[in-house]
Amino acid sequence: MVGGGPGAFIGGVHRMAMALDGRYRLIAGAFSASAPKSQETGRALGLEPQRVYDSWQQMLVAEAALPPSERIEAVSVVTPNHVHHGPAIAALEAGFHVICDKPLTTSKALADTLVAAVEQSGCHFALTHNYSGYPLIREARELVRGGGIGRVLKVYAEYLQGWLVDPIEAGGHKQADWRTDPARSGPGGALGDIGTHAFQLLEHVTGEKVTRLFGHRSSVVPTRKVDDDAMVLLEFASGASGSLIASQVCTGCENGLTLRVYGTTGAIEWRQEHPNDLRILHKDGATEIRRPGNSYLSAAAASLTRLPAGHPEGYLEGFANIYTAFARAIRGEQNIEHAYPTVEEGQRGVHFIETVIASAEQGQWVAL
Amino acid sequence: MVGGGPGAFIGGVHRMAMALDGRYRLIAGAFSASAPKSQETGRALGLEPQRVYDSWQQMLVAEAALPPSERIEAVSVVTPNHVHHGPAIAALEAGFHVICDKPLTTSKALADTLVAAVEQSGCHFALTHNYSGYPLIREARELVRGGGIGRVLKVYAEYLQGWLVDPIEAGGHKQADWRTDPARSGPGGALGDIGTHAFQLLEHVTGEKVTRLFGHRSSVVPTRKVDDDAMVLLEFASGASGSLIASQVCTGCENGLTLRVYGTTGAIEWRQEHPNDLRILHKDGATEIRRPGNSYLSAAAASLTRLPAGHPEGYLEGFANIYTAFARAIRGEQNIEHAYPTVEEGQRGVHFIETVIASAEQGQWVAL
Amino acid sequence: MVGGGPGAFIGGVHRMAMALDGRYRLIAGAFSASAPKSQETGRALGLEPQRVYDSWQQMLVAEAALPPSERIEAVSVVTPNHVHHGPAIAALEAGFHVICDKPLTTSKALADTLVAAVEQSGCHFALTHNYSGYPLIREARELVRGGGIGRVLKVYAEYLQGWLVDPIEAGGHKQADWRTDPARSGPGGALGDIGTHAFQLLEHVTGEKVTRLFGHRSSVVPTRKVDDDAMVLLEFASGASGSLIASQVCTGCENGLTLRVYGTTGAIEWRQEHPNDLRILHKDGATEIRRPGNSYLSAAAASLTRLPAGHPEGYLEGFANIYTAFARAIRGEQNIEHAYPTVEEGQRGVHFIETVIASAEQGQWVAL
Amino acid sequence: MVGGGPGAFIGGVHRMAMALDGRYRLIAGAFSASAPKSQETGRALGLEPQRVYDSWQQMLVAEAALPPSERIEAVSVVTPNHVHHGPAIAALEAGFHVICDKPLTTSKALADTLVAAVEQSGCHFALTHNYSGYPLIREARELVRGGGIGRVLKVYAEYLQGWLVDPIEAGGHKQADWRTDPARSGPGGALGDIGTHAFQLLEHVTGEKVTRLFGHRSSVVPTRKVDDDAMVLLEFASGASGSLIASQVCTGCENGLTLRVYGTTGAIEWRQEHPNDLRILHKDGATEIRRPGNSYLSAAAASLTRLPAGHPEGYLEGFANIYTAFARAIRGEQNIEHAYPTVEEGQRGVHFIETVIASAEQGQWVAL
Repeated sequence: MVGGGPGAFIGGVHRMAMALDGRYRLIAGAFSASAPKSQETGRALGLEPQRVYDSWQQMLVAEAALPPSERIEAVSVVTPNHVHHGPAIAALEAGFHVICDKPLTTSKALADTLVAAVEQSGCHFALTHNYSGYPLIREARELVRGGGIGRVLKVYAEYLQGWLVDPIEAGGHKQADWRTDPARSGPGGALGDIGTHAFQLLEHVTGEKVTRLFGHRSSVVPTRKVDDDAMVLLEFASGASGSLIASQVCTGCENGLTLRVYGTTGAIEWRQEHPNDLRILHKDGATEIRRPGNSYLSAAAASLTRLPAGHPEGYLEGFANIYTAFARAIRGEQNIEHAYPTVEEGQRGVHFIETVIASAEQGQWVAL
Repeated sequence: MVGGGPGAFIGGVHRMAMALDGRYRLIAGAFSASAPKSQETGRALGLEPQRVYDSWQQMLVAEAALPPSERIEAVSVVTPNHVHHGPAIAALEAGFHVICDKPLTTSKALADTLVAAVEQSGCHFALTHNYSGYPLIREARELVRGGGIGRVLKVYAEYLQGWLVDPIEAGGHKQADWRTDPARSGPGGALGDIGTHAFQLLEHVTGEKVTRLFGHRSSVVPTRKVDDDAMVLLEFASGASGSLIASQVCTGCENGLTLRVYGTTGAIEWRQEHPNDLRILHKDGATEIRRPGNSYLSAAAASLTRLPAGHPEGYLEGFANIYTAFARAIRGEQNIEHAYPTVEEGQRGVHFIETVIASAEQGQWVAL
Repeated sequence: MVGGGPGAFIGGVHRMAMALDGRYRLIAGAFSASAPKSQETGRALGLEPQRVYDSWQQMLVAEAALPPSERIEAVSVVTPNHVHHGPAIAALEAGFHVICDKPLTTSKALADTLVAAVEQSGCHFALTHNYSGYPLIREARELVRGGGIGRVLKVYAEYLQGWLVDPIEAGGHKQADWRTDPARSGPGGALGDIGTHAFQLLEHVTGEKVTRLFGHRSSVVPTRKVDDDAMVLLEFASGASGSLIASQVCTGCENGLTLRVYGTTGAIEWRQEHPNDLRILHKDGATEIRRPGNSYLSAAAASLTRLPAGHPEGYLEGFANIYTAFARAIRGEQNIEHAYPTVEEGQRGVHFIETVIASAEQGQWVAL
Repeated sequence: MVGGGPGAFIGGVHRMAMALDGRYRLIAGAFSASAPKSQETGRALGLEPQRVYDSWQQMLVAEAALPPSERIEAVSVVTPNHVHHGPAIAALEAGFHVICDKPLTTSKALADTLVAAVEQSGCHFALTHNYSGYPLIREARELVRGGGIGRVLKVYAEYLQGWLVDPIEAGGHKQADWRTDPARSGPGGALGDIGTHAFQLLEHVTGEKVTRLFGHRSSVVPTRKVDDDAMVLLEFASGASGSLIASQVCTGCENGLTLRVYGTTGAIEWRQEHPNDLRILHKDGATEIRRPGNSYLSAAAASLTRLPAGHPEGYLEGFANIYTAFARAIRGEQNIEHAYPTVEEGQRGVHFIETVIASAEQGQWVAL
């Protein structure tokens, strides 16, 4: 693991996600840019001291030098965005599989080199757009791509949070601090942090590609150096259209990711905060609510649930589904199709950020 | 009443709304452009035959000639949009108060003359943006305008229906027929029919004025002569921003009008299909759900409920609230402030339609 | 109308319910046991003074003496429970149809005489168990009775309110005053006021008869003279079982009437406070939500809706459905089967009250 | 671990729950009464072969013989109910802490000996009434016990499932097989399997003790050897009353555990299937919805969440909270009060089963 030291949020999530299904063992890490902090985290996690490194560079060199049976197999990159590209490229070059947090990189140019590196390496690469790991997102994908709602007409995605409505980065809030610093988060604030999740999800579920967009973004908190709010109109190759809104200043919103897709014969509606209800609307019939663990689900969705119907699984379980699918890929086991987000999806996310910024600056539609 | 003959929808709604509180008696009408149909409707409603007219022109002349104690006091205009302006102006000139369905007229220019006519007439004029008659919309308005959510930052309004996803106008569906015919509905389809409701509601509740917008509209059904889908980005005088989406091709949606307003300290969320739950989000506290009929509501909201808490009132009751407030105004009774939508709000709605169309054509932001 | 004077609640509801569909004209009334109050109400309602009576006895005599074309056709009895039996019997004897509020009478013995009187009179009689007027209750009834959930196994009905958690009758609350006075409400408090609604609803929807019950009741407010809380276990002729709980001391509950019925192949779940969602559960399929105004509903349910899908109708509309069905019956028009609750259902409700009381006293199961 | 071999359900849950927070390492097990199956499971879990035992008796002897630094510290008992008492007593006698699934034993007499054994052993003992591990159940408990809803008046608990509506035990369904066999499940079917969960939860949250109950139970599936449906009326020492229903034949229900508690000034409502919404009703105020991860929660509730607000945690996380609290207890770390269910709660659950059965047989109220 690279990153995930004291004060980190997502590192702990990755560790719980890899523990849940017993497919991973965390045996080495460079948990912080500060060597003592890295050691502190390694100790807390019960790692052997010699496998806790002062830097990711050191880790990759040292681990690559170990006999194959002892060395790590895969690297989790859970650092702030500007430290995704470096360790990911290096890990691939050292022959390790890579699981990387999103957004992939801080620029499209860097993303391109990473895509190339994955190809050359022959290694597996997963990007933790974890929301695609929910069973009912998988069900929605199977349904929509399988024609279950007819031809897609409208797509509305939202990701609303409220935690940045005040300039808490000024008060030393660690998560706010790096996420609102363009040097570490990249050019997109809300756009990158949560907008890319919504974007990945809508293309993942619909199988449709956005071809043109119109963006509006703002820093609602005036002192903020990145956007904390964005609204994007979307046009798709198929002729469908839609919108994506991402905001971190919607007071009272927690983690309000929603996806709604309307087709010629039906529709799906899903809300991350109640992830176990998938509403399916029908042109000539009653609304359906599908829930995990039931026999009527597609095989792909069924494979992502650990418990009988009515036993809620949530964020960590969805995250773990990505990890477990990646473990299967590494082991060459049978896997569901598109079981985890790819480096290309990460590249597209970064392209999305840059395109919205360009459109908002120009006040015009821009091709994606 | 002008309009509301056989096959009409909204005329019957107006009649139930005026009956509910016993403040109106329907005594005359020109219910259709077809004289026999007007007579048929008049008979079914139990009107005296001599008060059922062959045209609204005839009705206004004849009624004005009656002694004041016998003649009508107010005229309800419930015709398709292109027949709002004529009878409304004439009724005002004849000294009758007017209640008119929305959108006000088929062009901003016509709306301007109607605004002037109201002023000159000294009569009262109400536009049935009926959704502002819901008690919890009133509560939201009191709360938001009273500073209860701080400074407004984001406003999202939606009005999603699915009934026009197929070209049912081609099959003789009477409601679809005139609503998709620009000669009768005006230049906006979904924009005018439902978009203006959402627009009125968001300005009504927030007290904020949209100053600039960016529009996208489409005829998702290719043979359709008006838009059946619109997406609009909004900027407000206060610096707030937001979006409005209105669509009649969202399969499975019934009458999905929603309003969400996020401020610096709180937020409100409301859904027309479950109109008796107003969610209030707080920056540092649990989410609240306010419901009608409870002692904690504002006086203005409390005045719009007829029943104890937990006895659902709905669309007709909200509509009736507009009618009853208008009756109070005519009678000079104490009334709640802005108890019914005005002709100026109707004018602004028509301006909104024209501005969205202009923006969508130009692909640029346009001032409103 | 008998009753419905100043301070009354249900009288106003009956008047709105009869106004909504334009099938009734209120032309006479004895609105209060106090003659001046009766006159005051009559004036406020715009009745001709000579048709406002000082007592219901006077009204029935005077109206019966009018020529058939002028006299009233039906009498609404909206008084406290102990004044249902007298005017109802007298009205029937005078040849008037009767609409009566629930519970039918204050004793089974009185109910028996009323049933007999209806039979002898040849008049129509409706009891306003208004909740059976909701369109989705009708849908549930059609579904359950039509075998749509298989054989019924379990039935749970609840009616929870919180308004009597404090002894507000001591403070002069008019509604609480008579409803907690056994001389006026009869022996059941919560049991009679709301328990009978739940009981009627569960037999109405399932078509099953309760044959045995076990009751528990209490006066949670110690000074209260009637029960304000009851719990009843139920066994049905078919072998099904279930429970009914009715309480007026469930703090924060408004008007929480719910019905759930589970069968061998499916189930229905309905909540009065959100009356436009009927959940249908299936043994081998996703949960369905049916909503009014859609083409997939049964004809019987469809006939109870005035508006397109998504335009909420509520309590008053459901109440009006009872009134309108009764008007059709009086006029001999085509009607849906069991379109309004009958005097026999009222008789059974009073029997239910007495049986629960007996069981609670004995601590044993008692046959019904 | 004792139990949890091929085809087991709850064993896998315990393993995920212990893995999530990294506080446990599974190093030994007797996973099945069949030695080959135990070995198969041990291999699949990656255990050292010599720590996979053919029987729990063998395991306890062998582990106790290991040096303290190598031997197991605690035993998870995840077998069918009739094999709880044996390994639990033996483990305690061997000086191991015990985590045991519910219900505690198959009789009150056996439960009594286990309570005594825990006392004598000086070891810690936890019963996995896992639903008490949800953060909002903890919040509810803090609120109710702290007087936040006043004096408790009414308590309604439900646990509705539908999976046993058909006699699937006849078809070889492994879970149904032992759960409907009185020799393995004990005398209560639904009562023991899910009724005890509801019972523990209601006493856990309210701090009130049931002192008297009236029970009804049935085998809705006629060939079934245990009850699959139960209804129980409850009276509490404080004067409160309520009901508990537990059924496994409510078609379409998944895992419908709900708890509602009404007090003199407020109320709480909670549903396991949407465990992250706690509704709090107030006598004179709007309904509140509290959600995990927010600053307004009690410290005790806050300690049970791993993620920021809006990132759903569910069943496994609640289960893991029990495991982690138990690990803290074993380590002597600071813990929240009553952080995991005790052996006495298990004893009380078995007593509850026996008392309901007695009451149902006698048709009378019975003291508990």
